[in-house]
Order: sequence, then structure tokens, then C-alpha cells
Amino acid sequence: MRISELSRRTAVPAATIKYYVREGLLHPPTEVGYNRTEYDESHESRLRLVRALIEVGGVSVAAARGVVAALDNPELPAFELAGAAQSAMLGEHKASRSAQDRVATLLRDRGWCVSETNPGLGMVAAVLDRYDELHLTHLEQILPAYAQAAELAARAETDAAFGFPESERLAETVIVGTVLGDQVLAGLRRLAQEAITRDRLGSLPAAGYDTAGSENSRARS
Amino acid sequence: MRISELSRRTAVPAATIKYYVREGLLHPPTEVGYNRTEYDESHESRLRLVRALIEVGGVSVAAARGVVAALDNPELPAFELAGAAQSAMLGEHKASRSAQDRVATLLRDRGWCVSETNPGLGMVAAVLDRYDELHLTHLEQILPAYAQAAELAARAETDAAFGFPESERLAETVIVGTVLGDQVLAGLRRLAQEAITRDRLGSLPAAGYDTAGSENSRARS
Repeated sequence: MRISELSRRTAVPAATIKYYVREGLLHPPTEVGYNRTEYDESHESRLRLVRALIEVGGVSVAAARGVVAALDNPELPAFELAGAAQSAMLGEHKASRSAQDRVATLLRDRGWCVSETNPGLGMVAAVLDRYDELHLTHLEQILPAYAQAAELAARAETDAAFGFPESERLAETVIVGTVLGDQVLAGLRRLAQEAITRDRLGSLPAAGYDTAGSENSRARS
Repeated sequence: MRISELSRRTAVPAATIKYYVREGLLHPPTEVGYNRTEYDESHESRLRLVRALIEVGGVSVAAARGVVAALDNPELPAFELAGAAQSAMLGEHKASRSAQDRVATLLRDRGWCVSETNPGLGMVAAVLDRYDELHLTHLEQILPAYAQAAELAARAETDAAFGFPESERLAETVIVGTVLGDQVLAGLRRLAQEAITRDRLGSLPAAGYDTAGSENSRARS
């Protein structure tokens, strides 16, 4: 298909498509004669993936390039793909030895066995250092609950990934699941926070999405 | 204190401190004579907060400005602070009517009562649209598990926030808890994903953080 057709199908402007090709996020189109190029379904699905990472996942163009490179590496086992995707997204997190030790203790307590290169290690330790620095160390008490929540989510994700038959799409499932899963979890956490706070305080302004008055509120929205 | 002292204490370069003041992330220092300004502890603690948001939370300077403005608004109830912080971070998410309906159904199923302005609504719905578009709709099966995990995390966070006595720091607890909680949860999720995958496959390369060989692996790190 022409670039105009690809643009129409995906609602991505032609200039952005060309930019993604230049940046290595999308494989080049086929040259089919003088000054004419042809895109196919593989471009369409890749373009949708790149847009999901960048627009919904909040991933930078440079990081998305790392994710796409990991996806195109057939040598990489699926479970390392998630790590590659995540490392590309997060950059380096420096953390104190004390924070690293506390994360190691948490892992031992939960019986989690992970490699030293798992990007989650630095990510969690860096946050613990910030709690210390801001004198908000009471937030560290939440850590076991976060770990339990993370395990619950990860178990369901792993079930979904293993339940998926086609191996090519397994890689995509892992990447999309990892990046967009952060957004779902973050979004649902905000919703749960509000719902629980309303429950506890009992006297907040009326909510739009009410379990009791849901039909009314949905009709309004 | 002078800017050099503030810079030494927080490890933030003086030029960055001045930039934060210009950008409205940090209140201006006191003028104490010709070409001399004085910073105090309030600048130090705010600077640590801003740095935590930007460097660890991955929040943009513009978004951090919104968070700080919400924090400085004494009218805002604490539970709305999290929403303000989150809205500032996320921007607008457009989602289809069908995805919004599916989120509403999930909320009803869980008995969550939230306002229509909760940023989590658009966030989750936007991801559901991306699952559809990428033909990865089987990922939507994970949604109930994500909701359960989110509720678990939010309950522990709400307990921590309500257990905190000083009201001024309550606002900071909510903001830091919200923004950095995303990072902790994302990091722990990666760790849990790897641990669970290793369990299931049984034959992966040796892990650095092993519950059995933990003393050895920690000595190596």
C-alpha cells in the first residue's frame, strides 16, 4: 500500500511514518519503481506497536528503538525481551548499597530468584533512597503489599503469555504487556485509591461512576 | 544558606537550582543584600521532592510544576492531590466509547465508586483500545488480576497516608506515594515476572539473586 493508505489506516501522519523509518523504528518500505515505495501489513502492525509504546506507554523514541531492536532479535528468549524492553525504557538508576540490600532481603523473603541484570532491582532501590532522603520512610512499610500486588499481576501476565500459541506474537505480547501493563496498573491504582478514600471518609462529593447509581451516571457521560 | 551549600547538601548543581526557581518548581530565595540570596530548609526539602519526581519518577519539568502547584494549594483535599499530581503527569488520554464502557463495567464489578475526573479512567481505557488495535485482546483477561493487585496496593497506601500524623506532610506523602509508587510497582513487577518465568521453565541461566545461594551472590555484587 502507499504511505497515504498506511497513514489513513493507522491515523499516523505520513511525515511521522517517514520519521519513524529514518529513526529505525519501522523497517523501510519496498522500492517499487521511480520515487514510489510500497508498505505492507508488517509495516501496519509494527506502526501500531510503536505508536502504542510512544503515545500510551510514554516511551521515548530512543527507548522505543531499543524495544524494537529487542523484538527483531530472534536469539533473545521471551523472558529477556521484557527485560530488554524495560531496560531501554528506564535508563540507569543509581542506588545506595543499603537500599540494594533491602531489596535483596525483600526478594529472599518472597523467594524470588532473579538475575543481577533485572532492571527492577535498581528501580526499586532508587525509590527507597528517595523515601529516605525525603524522610518519608514510613512509605517503606507498603513494600510487602506492593510485592504481593506485583506478584499477583505478574502471575496473571505470565499465564496470558504462556497461554498464547503463536511464538512470534509471544514477543509482542510480552513487550506490550510489560509497557502497557504499567499504565493499566497505574490507572487502576488511582481508581482504587479514590474508591478506598471515599469509603473511609464517607462524605465526599458525589461520584460519577457510582456502583449504585451507575445507570444514571453513564447516561450523563 | 548560600546556593553552594544547598547544592552541596542535595547534590543538585547550582545552575539546576536556578533553573528550577525560574521554572517555578522552587520558591525564590530571600534577597539578603546586594547580589546575595539566602536559601533555607524549606528550599532543601522542596528541592529533594522535585528531584525525586523528575529523576526517579520520570515526571517532566512542566508536569512537576503542576504537582508543586497542587501541593501549594491549601484548599485541595489530600485525595484530590493525587489526582492533580497524576493528571499533570499523564496528559489527556483519548479512548473509544466501548473501552470506556468496559472500564465502567470493571468498576461496577469491583464496587469502586470514583469521580468522572479520575485520570485512571482515560488511562485504562486508552490501553484497552491499544490491545484491540494490536489484536492482543487476550491481554484484557489480565484486567481483573490487575484490579485486584491495584486494590491491594492502594489499600496499603491509604493506610500509610492516614496513619501519618502531620497534615502538611500528608500531601507530600500522597504525591510521593503516588508517583514513586508507580516505579516501585513497575520494578517489583519485572522482578516477579522473571522469578515466575524461571519457576515455570526450570532451566534458565543461574540467577544472581538466588534465595538459596543468596550469601554468595550478594558477596559478588
